[in-house]
Amino acid sequence: MRLATYDYKGLTGVGVVVGERIVDVTPLGPTMLDLITADAGTTARLQDAVAAGSGGYDLADVTLLAPIPVPPRNVLCVGRNYAEHIAEGASHGRNDGRMPEHPAWFTKAVTSLCGPADGIGLDLSLTGKHDWEAELAVVIGRPGRHIPKERAMEHIHSYCVLNDVTARDIQHRYGDQWFKGKSIDASSPMGPWLVTADEVGDPGGRRITCSVNGVLKQDSDTSQFIFDIPTLIADISQVLTLQPGDIISTGTPGGVGNGRTPQEYLRPGDVLETHVAGIGRLRNACVAL
Amino acid sequence: MRLATYDYKGLTGVGVVVGERIVDVTPLGPTMLDLITADAGTTARLQDAVAAGSGGYDLADVTLLAPIPVPPRNVLCVGRNYAEHIAEGASHGRNDGRMPEHPAWFTKAVTSLCGPADGIGLDLSLTGKHDWEAELAVVIGRPGRHIPKERAMEHIHSYCVLNDVTARDIQHRYGDQWFKGKSIDASSPMGPWLVTADEVGDPGGRRITCSVNGVLKQDSDTSQFIFDIPTLIADISQVLTLQPGDIISTGTPGGVGNGRTPQEYLRPGDVLETHVAGIGRLRNACVAL
Repeated sequence: MRLATYDYKGLTGVGVVVGERIVDVTPLGPTMLDLITADAGTTARLQDAVAAGSGGYDLADVTLLAPIPVPPRNVLCVGRNYAEHIAEGASHGRNDGRMPEHPAWFTKAVTSLCGPADGIGLDLSLTGKHDWEAELAVVIGRPGRHIPKERAMEHIHSYCVLNDVTARDIQHRYGDQWFKGKSIDASSPMGPWLVTADEVGDPGGRRITCSVNGVLKQDSDTSQFIFDIPTLIADISQVLTLQPGDIISTGTPGGVGNGRTPQEYLRPGDVLETHVAGIGRLRNACVAL
Repeated sequence: MRLATYDYKGLTGVGVVVGERIVDVTPLGPTMLDLITADAGTTARLQDAVAAGSGGYDLADVTLLAPIPVPPRNVLCVGRNYAEHIAEGASHGRNDGRMPEHPAWFTKAVTSLCGPADGIGLDLSLTGKHDWEAELAVVIGRPGRHIPKERAMEHIHSYCVLNDVTARDIQHRYGDQWFKGKSIDASSPMGPWLVTADEVGDPGGRRITCSVNGVLKQDSDTSQFIFDIPTLIADISQVLTLQPGDIISTGTPGGVGNGRTPQEYLRPGDVLETHVAGIGRLRNACVAL
C-alpha cells in the first residue's frame, strides 16, 4: 500500500493512494504515526477501505505533505554510504577516500522536512551552496534495540524518497558536525508517500536518480550501498531503541553539486526531481526567500 | 520557579519545587511542555498554587524524572565551547587546539535523557569508554527564527543541568559524527528541575562541576563559554525555528575522563555528581547492564 498524508482545502488527513485516487482513511488514523502503529484489526479495515475504494479524492485535487509531517525524533541519516559519493568528496578534499568501517550517523531536525511538491526556499543571505542528495528512506514500524541483522527487515514499516538538501558551507564549518547545514526549515522534500514493506519486497537494486531542470545529476542504484539496510538498523540500534515512525535515510550516491567540477548549487527557479524506482518521485521548485 | 516532572507511585505529574515540598500543578499542565507554553492566565494560576502551597508531596516521596521526559526534537548540543576542553582534546589529538569561529552543533536523541537520580546503565559489551560532560542546558520558551543576539534572552524559558554522557570510542568512529556516541538510551541525566529565567537572571559566572565518587573532575564556570548563550541562540536560529521545549546544551568545560592522563571512564558502582550553582545537582549511580 501507498500511504500518504494530504491536505484538502486546509484539512489534513491520511489516505491510501490507489492509481489516481486517494482513499481517505483518516477515521482509521487520524495521523500517519497512528497508521504505522496500527494493530492487525485496523490494518484489516484499512485493506477493506482500499478494496471498497469509495470516499476520498482525485490525487490531483489534494496537496501531498511529507508523509510523517513531524516525526517523533530527528531523521537518522548516514553519510558516505555509496563509494562514488566518497570518491567525489575525496577529490575535493572532504575525506581521505577510504571506505568506512562504520556508518557515519548524523541527524536532520524534524522541521527540515517538506512535502513532495513543496517549493524549497533558498535563503541566499544564509548560504549560496544549497546542494541535492537523493536518498532512499526507511521508516521503522516495530520498535527494537540490539536488533540482529537477520531480523532487521521485520522492523521496517515502509520506504519513501527523501532529498537530504544540504547547505555545504554550513555543513563543514567548525567541528565538521553536519547537523546545522542539514537542518534548514522546510528544505528537504520527503514522500511522495510511504510504500509499505510488503509491497516493496527487496529494496535493493532500485534505480535512484536526481535531476535539476531535467538534467540527470545523480544516477545509481540501491545495490551500491556500502552498509545495507539490515546493517544500518543493527548498527544504530546498538545504542538506541528504534521507535515506530523513526526515519533512516540511507545516504546519497555520487553526483552531488559539491562533488562536480565546477561545483554546482541550487538556484531560484531550479526544479529538483528525486526518484527511486518503485517508490516514487519528488518534484520541487526552488524559490528565493 | 523550579518546575519538575515527577513520578509518585507510578503516576507522572508536574509540580513546583518549594523548599522540601513539591506543589502539584498537574491540573494546570498536565505536562512540562504545557507549562512551558502556558499563557499568562495559567502562569498566574501557577503562582497562586505556589503561594497557597497546599497539595503536593514531600520531595523525598517522589522520584524526579527528566524535566521534559520526551522533548519534541533531539537535544541541540554544542561541542568545544570551553577553551580548557579544547586544549585537553588537542593534547589527545582530537582537534587542532585552535579556537572555533563557529559553534559545532550536533544532537542527542530525545531518548538518551534520564532523570536526575536515575541509574546510568553501562553497556560494557558496547563500549568501556562512557565519559562525563557536565553542562548547563537552556530550555526555549518562545519560538523564533533569525533571532538577533540582543533579543535572544527573551526566548529562554528556563535552565537546568545536563550531563552529556558520551561513549568516546563510538563518538569518534568513521566520519567523526558525534550523534551515535551521544545517544545511548537513558544515559544522560537532566534536571533536577527547570529553573525559570526570571529566577536565574544572568546565567553567566555560575560554577559548574562534575565529580566521580566525590572526587572533583570538572570545575569551571559559565563565564568561560567561547560562544555565550545569546550567540548560540542566534546562530542555530539562522537555519531552524526554535520551538518551545527545545533544549540547547551549552558544552562542557575541561576535565572530562578522555582528556586526562591516564584516561578515565565510568565504571559500574561509580557515583556521578553534576552541579551548576543556583540551578541544581544531579546524582547518578552507574550500573552494569
